[in-house]
Amino acid sequence: MDKIGTYQFLTEPFHCDFSQQLTMPHLGNHLLNAADFHSNDRNFGMKYLMPRNRTWVLSRLAIDVIELPQAYDRFQIKTWVESAMRFFTNRNFKVMDESGNKVYALGKSIWALIDTESRQPADIFAIRNGEIKQWETTSETCEMDKPTRIAIKEETKTLRQIETRYSDVDMNGHINSIKYIEHALDIWTVDFYKTHRIKRIEAAYVAESKPGDILIYSGLETCNNDFSIKIERKTTLEEKLTEVCRLRVVFE
Amino acid sequence: MDKIGTYQFLTEPFHCDFSQQLTMPHLGNHLLNAADFHSNDRNFGMKYLMPRNRTWVLSRLAIDVIELPQAYDRFQIKTWVESAMRFFTNRNFKVMDESGNKVYALGKSIWALIDTESRQPADIFAIRNGEIKQWETTSETCEMDKPTRIAIKEETKTLRQIETRYSDVDMNGHINSIKYIEHALDIWTVDFYKTHRIKRIEAAYVAESKPGDILIYSGLETCNNDFSIKIERKTTLEEKLTEVCRLRVVFE
Repeated sequence: MDKIGTYQFLTEPFHCDFSQQLTMPHLGNHLLNAADFHSNDRNFGMKYLMPRNRTWVLSRLAIDVIELPQAYDRFQIKTWVESAMRFFTNRNFKVMDESGNKVYALGKSIWALIDTESRQPADIFAIRNGEIKQWETTSETCEMDKPTRIAIKEETKTLRQIETRYSDVDMNGHINSIKYIEHALDIWTVDFYKTHRIKRIEAAYVAESKPGDILIYSGLETCNNDFSIKIERKTTLEEKLTEVCRLRVVFE
Repeated sequence: MDKIGTYQFLTEPFHCDFSQQLTMPHLGNHLLNAADFHSNDRNFGMKYLMPRNRTWVLSRLAIDVIELPQAYDRFQIKTWVESAMRFFTNRNFKVMDESGNKVYALGKSIWALIDTESRQPADIFAIRNGEIKQWETTSETCEMDKPTRIAIKEETKTLRQIETRYSDVDMNGHINSIKYIEHALDIWTVDFYKTHRIKRIEAAYVAESKPGDILIYSGLETCNNDFSIKIERKTTLEEKLTEVCRLRVVFE
């Protein structure tokens, strides 16, 4: 089996926004699906891990967008493991048109393995005797900046406050990684999107949150069209805020 | 070409809820996609209509759920036009497993054609000289109750109030038909869904709404586990409430 997995997708009309282009949250979900297919096909995915009380957790995600596919366009996502260490793997993505000539977007991600009971990091090399190392490849390029450290200034302002609900929850019972991004992109109006396109999104996932948690989005424009957003959760049980995620959204 | 269109889908893991089953809003989107593919393949779809200032508008949708596909299950959606009249078409859906032996869900829908400029109903038979009549078929069964008139009692209570945002908008720039359902299903908690499964959903679309409109969900349980919900919009321009949609959600 090839070290690089290639998966075909169709830009479904009901996954497009007013501009008739695929939305970023739907593209993000497709990337996560591609990662899931690639790891399952090679026997280190959720299907193998779940019965063994292990699961992959997304720690970092960065997406550089060159152009988004239009409604009805077919596209492909290539994904591969660039490197695997004891506690993290680096996985890259390349989103291309059907012919493979045009690059729509690039992605870099970092994943941790956790014990589903203790929710603590687990040893990646303990799975199938470190077999994941044999899937490492750098044969495909992914020329984009790595996820950076997202700095949050002291003097931020609250942008949104959201009560998480049924539709925010994933198969693990936690808030879906992409939903944090979807709620963040809803900070801007449709009119803003008519004159600004998203060039880059970065996400750093710090802690998990559960349905019913209140998410508080705060942040600022750090420089022209470059926004840093901190997401904190407030549960009914504890009054203090816990940081769950940091996002960076760069418009052009 | 067959009068019945059959389209293949995969239950993507990130389209599933905590129970590892496809969510109803994602199933609803797949139905709309199947309708879109079927009509485009037969030259009376959005691709043909949009340049001619016409578009299909969903007026009624009813879905009966027997069982929902699990993560990674492949499934197929059959869809066909049961009957076409001057101002409405009746379109049916059958959701089945890969083999075609198990029925997951049935659906019935009513669509109107509108002029995209005046937003007024348009003559369906004026399109390609009424060619749509030749696609009518009753060869496939769809044994379920038709959409009923959803009665709303006077003494309802407000359940939710939502400001519509970027992610709610479809390719036409209006609120996506399925988003009304997604927001309604978020009225119930994850704990409620652990002991109740959705048996039937009905939607009657009355008027359109735009991003920025406030949606007010009100309603009541009309009898055991049978909920009727009225959705009204409030715009910044007008103070009065306008009804946009009625929903019925039946749990088991």
